[in-house]
Amino acid sequence: MRSSRLPSVSPEIEKLIDLLAKVPGLGRRSAQRAALALLKKRDTLLAPLAQALVEASEKVKACSACGSLDAMDPCAICASPTRDQGLICVVGEVGDVWALERAGVFRGRYHVLGGVLSALDGVRPEDLRVGKLVERAAAPEVREVIIALNATVDGQTTAHYLTERLQGVDVAVTRLAHGVPVGGELELLDEGTLLAALTSRRPF
Amino acid sequence: MRSSRLPSVSPEIEKLIDLLAKVPGLGRRSAQRAALALLKKRDTLLAPLAQALVEASEKVKACSACGSLDAMDPCAICASPTRDQGLICVVGEVGDVWALERAGVFRGRYHVLGGVLSALDGVRPEDLRVGKLVERAAAPEVREVIIALNATVDGQTTAHYLTERLQGVDVAVTRLAHGVPVGGELELLDEGTLLAALTSRRPF
Repeated sequence: MRSSRLPSVSPEIEKLIDLLAKVPGLGRRSAQRAALALLKKRDTLLAPLAQALVEASEKVKACSACGSLDAMDPCAICASPTRDQGLICVVGEVGDVWALERAGVFRGRYHVLGGVLSALDGVRPEDLRVGKLVERAAAPEVREVIIALNATVDGQTTAHYLTERLQGVDVAVTRLAHGVPVGGELELLDEGTLLAALTSRRPF
Repeated sequence: MRSSRLPSVSPEIEKLIDLLAKVPGLGRRSAQRAALALLKKRDTLLAPLAQALVEASEKVKACSACGSLDAMDPCAICASPTRDQGLICVVGEVGDVWALERAGVFRGRYHVLGGVLSALDGVRPEDLRVGKLVERAAAPEVREVIIALNATVDGQTTAHYLTERLQGVDVAVTRLAHGVPVGGELELLDEGTLLAALTSRRPF
């Protein structure tokens, strides 16, 4: 493998490329392109980006209720009076909150676990925000906890664990439906999904 | 098209995503992932990146001789006593300097034009560092100017223009060879490349 280090580049540029290459989505080559583009657009891109990074770092915190990220605590979603206080949707990461908000399909509140249980990665229940979930679920206004974890082995293991932990709490515990993705082709789906879609079939 | 704006995200995060999405190589979705990753790794990635951006912005300048980017002026390559002062390699952008330096195949100095002539984009000779090239090429130690512009229509138009401009100067003007890329398959090459490779064939 040929190294893509640049022997004759200044340490300032090298450092910038090194850090950009650690940003998910950018490899080393694209980090070099990004560094050049940033240096070309100093006033319109580089300086504002540096500023935005500092501001986000200073102001954005995890919500003490749901664990999502916001400049307010509690976050805008937890604090909103228009969101259904009776529904809590449990997700693994903040990115999942964003995915559901993008879709605009859920009007309750969230609970971000901060990951899923994983024997391989050594993630234990005490590493996740499980205690806080049980505490929130026990609030009198909460009717239902929707477990919206990834449909992976670890995600489903975590879902089962949460169901057990929530057994003493007087709430309905539900999970997202499995089935054919909208726009998905049957031919390309795995057996597990097809089985789930078939057994959960609905009247037309 | 569904918008991927996040209605319930704080302006600080939204701003960060907006700017990250302008970095070449990151689309809007990957900018969201990048923003989350940065906020997760505040001390190890976000803060150092903000710092590196500021430092690069303050220290990195265009070399007054060759136009490449460095924290020194003249740049490390122009200032190096071990590089052949008799050879100037003309490239379009700083990224081309980096590509050649990565390959480690050229031991002379560079000249970055800052683009190529383009009727479509309105790039005229006076927008490029052509005068400076003629001036540098006229220095007594310079033997050869190698034109290493992209093999595109604009690149080749620019190459012809430079050849004309350098006609009064006592230097050899050469260009990169056209031919089959190393590792390239004949079947996938265009006619122009095949013709160039055939007419420039070399004895085994």
